[in-house]
Formats: sequence, structure tokens, C-alpha cells
Amino acid sequence: MPEVLSSTPTKSNVRAALDELAAGMGNRLATSQAIREQHTNVTTWSPGPPPDGVIFPQDADDVHKAMRICAKHRVPVIPFGAGSSLEGHLNAPLGGISFDMKDMNRILAVNVEDFDCVVEPGVTRQQLNDYLRDQGLFFPIDPGADAQLGGMAATRASGTTAVRYGTMKDAVLAMKVVLASGEVLTTSQRARKSSAGYDLTRLFVGSEGTLGVITELTLRLHPIPEAIAGGVCHFPTIQASCDAAICAIQLGIPLARVELVDEVQIGICNGYSKLSLPEKPHLFVEFHGTDLGIKEQTERFAEIVEEFGGSPFEWSANPEDRSLLWKARHDMFWADKAYRPGSQVVVTDVCVPISRLAECVIETKDDIRQNRLVAPLFGHVGDGNFHTVVSVMMDDADEVERVKSFVSRLSERAIAMEGTCTGEHGVGDGKQPYLEAELGRCAVDTMGAIKQTLDPNGIMNPGKIM
Amino acid sequence: MPEVLSSTPTKSNVRAALDELAAGMGNRLATSQAIREQHTNVTTWSPGPPPDGVIFPQDADDVHKAMRICAKHRVPVIPFGAGSSLEGHLNAPLGGISFDMKDMNRILAVNVEDFDCVVEPGVTRQQLNDYLRDQGLFFPIDPGADAQLGGMAATRASGTTAVRYGTMKDAVLAMKVVLASGEVLTTSQRARKSSAGYDLTRLFVGSEGTLGVITELTLRLHPIPEAIAGGVCHFPTIQASCDAAICAIQLGIPLARVELVDEVQIGICNGYSKLSLPEKPHLFVEFHGTDLGIKEQTERFAEIVEEFGGSPFEWSANPEDRSLLWKARHDMFWADKAYRPGSQVVVTDVCVPISRLAECVIETKDDIRQNRLVAPLFGHVGDGNFHTVVSVMMDDADEVERVKSFVSRLSERAIAMEGTCTGEHGVGDGKQPYLEAELGRCAVDTMGAIKQTLDPNGIMNPGKIM
Repeated sequence: MPEVLSSTPTKSNVRAALDELAAGMGNRLATSQAIREQHTNVTTWSPGPPPDGVIFPQDADDVHKAMRICAKHRVPVIPFGAGSSLEGHLNAPLGGISFDMKDMNRILAVNVEDFDCVVEPGVTRQQLNDYLRDQGLFFPIDPGADAQLGGMAATRASGTTAVRYGTMKDAVLAMKVVLASGEVLTTSQRARKSSAGYDLTRLFVGSEGTLGVITELTLRLHPIPEAIAGGVCHFPTIQASCDAAICAIQLGIPLARVELVDEVQIGICNGYSKLSLPEKPHLFVEFHGTDLGIKEQTERFAEIVEEFGGSPFEWSANPEDRSLLWKARHDMFWADKAYRPGSQVVVTDVCVPISRLAECVIETKDDIRQNRLVAPLFGHVGDGNFHTVVSVMMDDADEVERVKSFVSRLSERAIAMEGTCTGEHGVGDGKQPYLEAELGRCAVDTMGAIKQTLDPNGIMNPGKIM
Repeated sequence: MPEVLSSTPTKSNVRAALDELAAGMGNRLATSQAIREQHTNVTTWSPGPPPDGVIFPQDADDVHKAMRICAKHRVPVIPFGAGSSLEGHLNAPLGGISFDMKDMNRILAVNVEDFDCVVEPGVTRQQLNDYLRDQGLFFPIDPGADAQLGGMAATRASGTTAVRYGTMKDAVLAMKVVLASGEVLTTSQRARKSSAGYDLTRLFVGSEGTLGVITELTLRLHPIPEAIAGGVCHFPTIQASCDAAICAIQLGIPLARVELVDEVQIGICNGYSKLSLPEKPHLFVEFHGTDLGIKEQTERFAEIVEEFGGSPFEWSANPEDRSLLWKARHDMFWADKAYRPGSQVVVTDVCVPISRLAECVIETKDDIRQNRLVAPLFGHVGDGNFHTVVSVMMDDADEVERVKSFVSRLSERAIAMEGTCTGEHGVGDGKQPYLEAELGRCAVDTMGAIKQTLDPNGIMNPGKIM
């Protein structure tokens, strides 16, 4: 593998870069300890030193100028979105400058007839959807957090709706990126499809800030469905819940979301949200379509649920009722956070072919039990993707060790089932140990070679992916 | 731009490579003039010398061995599928060895529950669909020709169903590729989604044989729809036909195909297929869904057609009736081939944001008229992608010149409308002059840098893309 990590810049290089940034950017540069610490990784348990400074670019020109300064002094650049990434993407192992994109949050164009929009990277998905509502369009990718769209592209985010609308690789039509060289790359035009050379758009989607800083995105939108129905049901076993979901997909029922939530997670949600759901594996399902279409889909789905021994399928197309049915799913993250006071939560994910999902989940739950971990589990069953939220008391060395070895086994288990160590969170520094086992040396070397070509001095988000 | 084209290999290098290939591959190497000429470009008007030899690998090991020999002697490698590419992809400007993949046509696995399959690159899409039929699944990408799946991946093919099922970038889950170094790259695992590092799968989809030889593909499949309906209608103007299609998409009607066919093409089809369709712009539409869903979709679509001044929308879910309604669309390629005896047809395509489609088509039709060309036009209106089939008498120097300048203007027009010079045919050598105008110098340089990194001696399909 080519050596792509730059060495830690000298103190004088960092000083020189900070001085030039201060001269060029004024109060859009911050160097206080507090702000720097807010820009290292806060949503993972993966420790990381803070950057040497944080800039708040106002436009692509700021990004371009700051990149030139960092490149000149060989100081690392760490693009920063909402800070909600989960695998240590924002750690600054060699110091450097965090580029906080929050002020670049303009919606530049909405092309209603083309079902696309052009935005700056700091726009969040909820901001975009609020803006779009009146125009009958929406942006479907929903990773849970109100992440910034630039960060979502950088980590190839997806979430609950991927089964119907795909991931960020499908949602991004084009990008503008400031490369490590300072050059501005346009990855594609705005047409819905193109076969004009290498797919640079997809190369940058999921590149985790290691190849450049995204300054503009063209995103694909969808018409807001005429009708939306949500429903919930439970099953005697994980296997039955997965089989029901697979059967529904096989019959062509166009599920918009199909979420598996295990009995441990249901128990935690019951406590948090004052519910009394049976502590069994649940499926939370959503349908998008016409009134007639949704009626047909829900009826068919209810038959499948019955066939696989599930509880009667309760559903509603009324927004308030839907919300109530899905309450446990919506509150889940907060329920998990609150469940074990004083603990840190380790949120991690894997993805396997859906035929292996039940097996992978069952083995993982056995592993959790055997290792006495508190780890509710839920997943996007239509994609074979699931998450565990492991709580850990950081002052309990034994528990920390058990969690670490659990995460390793989880990744290895998924890979052994022809799956991936990360379905939607990215590699960051957390999943690096598993990349070669998953894809082989040649793939990791190929990624390294591309990285080295586009960032020969290794200044872009060093220490991530490989 | 980095220099990625190798120079023509010396005669002694070619001789040495052929000798080693003959020793290693026996009668799976062919060097006769006839076979070599069958492996240069036959479906385009772009002239190109034949390769020095053609090999017929039986498995990945053959590809690997032959690649090592070609790399050792720095002799170009030109991967060859069904030969149906349209932009000079198979020309051998520096000679070299054509790798004809037709014997690598095994279907290695069909994973019904996972909606995927693993195939060798020489499997054609019809072969795959014939094989899948009993299992309730199908492979939706339909570029027209019965292309090989390896070639379809290499050119990022799409076609009539892209509006619903996407393009090869969406259909390919993973690949195995023999790189110029002889190493075997696995681009991804079989999981439906992954965020494990750079998207190597998408980098190789559309790379037109310039980065390696695909030896295996994992493809996403879909359940065969319960019901399929096809229909046809005509409009007073191109604008009205495009507006109707856009409106249908905006209302969320999940069109599976929506094909625009202009009045010139309809006239040619009438002659060829003994039809008497009005010589007006037509839409040919297909719906996939449940019986109930299709009924609803066709009724809604019929209302839209009426609103935009179209003829009554005739449709049927009966396979024979559907076939009859779509007859003109199905026979089109042959009708165009036969229309002007002795002429060569120049099939080219562009793609623009759909809001600009009508404008682009109207300007293009004016251009055709003003330049006295015979050029029927049809397109995948849901994607903003359209084709012209220009017939040209190759011995008429003036007409050849008019066709060349027309193709230039067509590409430039699409690019000026934020579109692409190639929606689904690829760059080959035919669209190279427009790539920089479309994406800018930085994008072309970035592609060149990636190419040089993965193929430093420039042996992979030289002279293509850039």
C-alpha cells in the first residue's frame, strides 16, 4: 500500500498556516480550545485530538483560498459537517484545520421540472425538506440525524428509506469539489444520467473528506407521495420478521421503509416513551403511493405478516396515528442515550445480503448476551443493514475490552457472510482494521493509489479510510 | 493532462506477445485478417484499424495470464463484448490484443432471496433473463441490443427502463477486474449497500475497458412485475409530448418506460412495419405493478395525455396487444437500418435536464432540416436522453461533412443546456472532443491521473475516453 499519511506538520508550519488564515479570513478562523474540541469527534467513542484551528468558510472562494494556504504549509484539512458521523471521521490525528461548512448553507436552485436542486454543503436535510415542501418535492435520504448534505455525501449516508430511494450514491447527481491542489473539480453536469467518462461523482461520494472539500451538490429530488401509510407488527422470532420482509420485497410490494427493531430495543423504548409494546421483534413499515395503491400494499403486507406468524398489522395513513404507531422507532436514539446514565454509546453498523440477515442478527444477539453487553439492535431490513447501540462505561476497563472485541467479531461475522463491515456509517478510523479482510489487499491498494494521486502530500483528512 | 496513451508497440513486441499467447492459449488465439476485422468497430462509422490478434479467454485465469503477457510486452488490451458499442470503443489505434469475452458466459449463482446474481462478463442480458424467468426475477436494464453484461457495465449502459430501474451504475453491485498490473481486484462484497471506502464498483462501471478487464459481475435483480401494461398516444407537438411525460413523473406515476418517437421516425416505421400511425410525435409507455396499480396508473396517464392535447391513450395489459401497440418502437432500429439502402447509420445520443428536453429536441430537429439530413429521433424522455440515427452515404463527402458538424453541434447544444454529450453510449473515441467542454479541464485531468495510476503504461484500451 502506498504511504498516504502525511507526517505531523511542524509547529512552525501550523503557525504559518494559522497566521495566513487569520490574515485572509479574520474572525472566520477560531483557535480557542473550546471550539477546537467541539470540532473533534463527539459522536463516537473513538478518541482523537482536536484540530489546530477551525475555519468557517462563507463560500467556495473561502474554501479555495484556505485550501491553498493549508496545501502550501502541508497542514491537514478536515472537512466538518454536522459532526454526526460515527466512525471517528473528524478526528485530527495530525492536527490541522477543521473546515466547518455550516455557514455555506444556501439553497442555490430548485429545478422543479427536473426534480433536482443545487445546494451548498452546509444545508441540512431537514432545512432542504422544509424549503421544498411547498413545491411538492422532497429529498428522501434519511440517516436519522439532521446531518448536512455535504457530510452525507462524504460518508455515503443512507438510512431508513434506502430500500425505496437508494443511498447518497443515488441522490447526488453532481458535485463541485476543491481538491488538495486547490483546483475546483466539477464531477458531472445536471442531466439525470451520463456516460461521459469515469464516474467522478460516485468516486467522491463516500470519500470521507480524503480527496477534497465539497463546495456544491446537485441532488435528485422526488415528488412528495400523494399518500403515506405507516404500520407496525411484531413477530415471535427475528427469523420470522426477516422472512416476512423478504417475502414482501419478493412480491414487489414497494416498501418505503421497513425497520426491524429487536425486543431489547422495544423494552428500552417502552420505558422511555411510556409504551407497552410486547417485547418481541417488531417491524415498522411505511408505504408511499396513491390512496388506492397504499390500501392494496397494506392489505397485502398484512397477509404476509399473518402468514409468518406476526401480530395483526396495525396501520394508518393519518399523520398523527402514523406518528403514534412509529413513536418507539422515532424516539429510539434518545431512549438508548438515556437508558444507562453515565455510559457512552457505541453506534456501529454492518450490512449483509438479506438472505443472511436473520442469521447474522441472531448470532450477534447471542454474542451480546454471552458477553453481558447492553446492546439494543435495529436495522434497515430491506437492505440487510443493521445497527447495534452498545452502551459502555468508559471507566470499566473490562467492559471496554468486551465492547471492542464485540465490534471486531461483528465486522468479521458480516464479512464472512459476504457482507460489509459498514453499511452506511463509513470507514473513518473505526472500521479501518476490517477493510482488507472485506475487499482484499488489491482494493485497499487501489484506493491508496487513487488517494496518493489526488492528494500526493496526504493533507486531506489524514488517517481515515486507509 | 497526463499522457496516458502508450505509443504503438514495436513489431517485435507484438510478435513476442503473440508467440507467448499462442504458446499459452493455443487455438484460443486467432490472428486471421477476417477475425481481427470482426473485432474492430463494426457498429459505428468511426474508422479504426483492427487489433493484432484476438483471444477467447475461457475463464478469469486465462484473462489473468494473457494480461500478464500483454503487460510484459506493453501491447494494448482491448476488451470486447458483443461489439454493439457505438462510439468507437473497440478501435485499436495502436494495434494490440482484443479480449473477446463471449466464452466466459456462465451464470455462476442466482441468489433469489437477495435479488442478485453472479455472472461472467460474456453472459448477454437476454441469456440472463431467459435463465431467470422461472425464478420470478428479471434483470431490467435494456439498451436495445442483446449486449453482454460485461460490456454494458464497461459503458455504463442504460436504455428504455432507466427511468424506473436506473442504469448499470445502479445494477452492478460488485465486480472482479483484472488490472493492467495483472492483479485481481474485487470492488465490493455482495451486500446491497456499503460505505466501505471509495466506490470502486462505480469507478469501473463506465470505464470503457481503460482500467482493466471485468471477469465477474454481481448484478441486482428485480421481481418480475405481477402485471405489465403498454400503451401509445400521439401529440400535436414535441413540446406537448415532453410536457405530458414530465407531468406524469411529477405526479408520481411510476412509469417503467416512456419513449418519445418523433414524426420522422414514425413515418419510417410505418413504411417498414406496414403501420399507419399518424406522423406525429408519439409516446410509447409501459407500466409495471399490480393489476389494480396498473389500472390506476393508465387511467391517470390517460387524463394527463388528454390535458396536453394528445390522442386517446390506447393501452393493454395483454402481452400480444402490448406487442402490437409497441410494434413501431420495437422495429425501429431495423427500420432505420433499412430505410436508405447503401447508407451507414450514425447512432448518437445526448442527455439534458428534462425541463430542457423539448427545447433541445426542437432545435436539433431544426438543425437536421436545415442541413438536409435524414435523421429520425427518439428518446428516453423520463431521463432527458435522446438519440438521432443519422443516415449517411459515405461516398458523399459533402453529406459526411454535414453529419460531422451536426454531431458536434448536437453535443455542444446538450452541454450548453447543462446536459451531457453522451447519456448512455459512452465516450469511446467519438465523444472525446466534447469532454473538456462538458466537465472542464480539471475533471479530464483527474480522469487522466486515475488512468495513469492504475495503468501506468497505457496498455488498457488506449485512445478511449481521454
